[in-house]
Amino acid sequence: MNNISKIPKATITRLSLYLRQLELLEFDGYRMVSSGKMAWLCQVNPAQVRKDLGYFGEFGIRGVGYDVIDLQEEIKKILAINREWNVGIVGLGNLGLALIDYQNFQARGFYFVAAFDSDPLKIGREIVSGLKVFDFRELRNIVKELNIDIGIITTPASAAQKIADSFFQADVTAILNFSSAQIHAPGHCIVENIDFTVKLDILTYKLKNVIGI
Amino acid sequence: MNNISKIPKATITRLSLYLRQLELLEFDGYRMVSSGKMAWLCQVNPAQVRKDLGYFGEFGIRGVGYDVIDLQEEIKKILAINREWNVGIVGLGNLGLALIDYQNFQARGFYFVAAFDSDPLKIGREIVSGLKVFDFRELRNIVKELNIDIGIITTPASAAQKIADSFFQADVTAILNFSSAQIHAPGHCIVENIDFTVKLDILTYKLKNVIGI
Repeated sequence: MNNISKIPKATITRLSLYLRQLELLEFDGYRMVSSGKMAWLCQVNPAQVRKDLGYFGEFGIRGVGYDVIDLQEEIKKILAINREWNVGIVGLGNLGLALIDYQNFQARGFYFVAAFDSDPLKIGREIVSGLKVFDFRELRNIVKELNIDIGIITTPASAAQKIADSFFQADVTAILNFSSAQIHAPGHCIVENIDFTVKLDILTYKLKNVIGI
Repeated sequence: MNNISKIPKATITRLSLYLRQLELLEFDGYRMVSSGKMAWLCQVNPAQVRKDLGYFGEFGIRGVGYDVIDLQEEIKKILAINREWNVGIVGLGNLGLALIDYQNFQARGFYFVAAFDSDPLKIGREIVSGLKVFDFRELRNIVKELNIDIGIITTPASAAQKIADSFFQADVTAILNFSSAQIHAPGHCIVENIDFTVKLDILTYKLKNVIGI
């Protein structure tokens, strides 16, 4: 395994996309796939596919391609999704509910084991079978009790740092942040941000350059 | 203005983050901000701030910093969000509703003017004031009638390509895709993907390397 710092984030993003396409190929009955076909499915060029995988070893057979099932296992190992991860989510608005409902998470080994909110009308209820809503002030205790590995924040920006700090204090070192807040984290902790507005800004920036406004 | 192809996507992403922080600084009563403070707020280094802005011109005053209001206007021009954009959204599950409800969009000039679904129970209803749900089969007509600039797809992956094609045929050239489908688009069209699973995969990949599993 190479050093993490040498491998571009874009490569990791593409590995995740390759995995998705390999799953679909398996579903469609394919056993092998060429780097050319993988590239087309993922909308990158074939050299990129080979380069991305090349960071982690030799997976393909020259002139034949990749084994659809074996390569899935290899990528799952690389991405550390060959195991289960317990997820706790804070903020049960529409977005929080959408994420809990999102089938792809469970398929990849991400399990929601606890949900948190500050709304007394939500606290104590069971959203889906087995997933109870806790008062977010109980976060630290519940994190330890239920062995939460990953925290997801879908609260308004104003609450996000405080919640992240609670996660960090409870030794959760990985946060997926959907709020627009920039979260300050200790050096050993990892925060990935999903900011919808940023994506729209990128879209309009490109659009401007395409249509020439 | 430099050629679009020379400017890293990461720079555009950071411009969007700078803008968010400048808005907050203005709200807090600041008139000027140093690149050092901007960098700290956005969790990048000061040289990066200067380099990112440097692609587009000279905005700061040496030894003083940036004008909080002027720089907002400049970044809005660069990102083409100094105007209004009409948005149409397809797929009214929890995620679609969360996006429609998302206050930051309207603040940045993105207006939902039409929503589409295939569910007869949803079609014809008004979700929020002025936003009506149309049958997605009417998409092409409604896009033209309401001058939709940007399409957002929050349907299951299986429906995404078909919907994207309808947008493209109606001359919508910019799509924000929340489904896990890889959308194939004509060369002049732009698709930005937001895939939650990919973000979780990146998180666990980094986590693996930090905790050494």
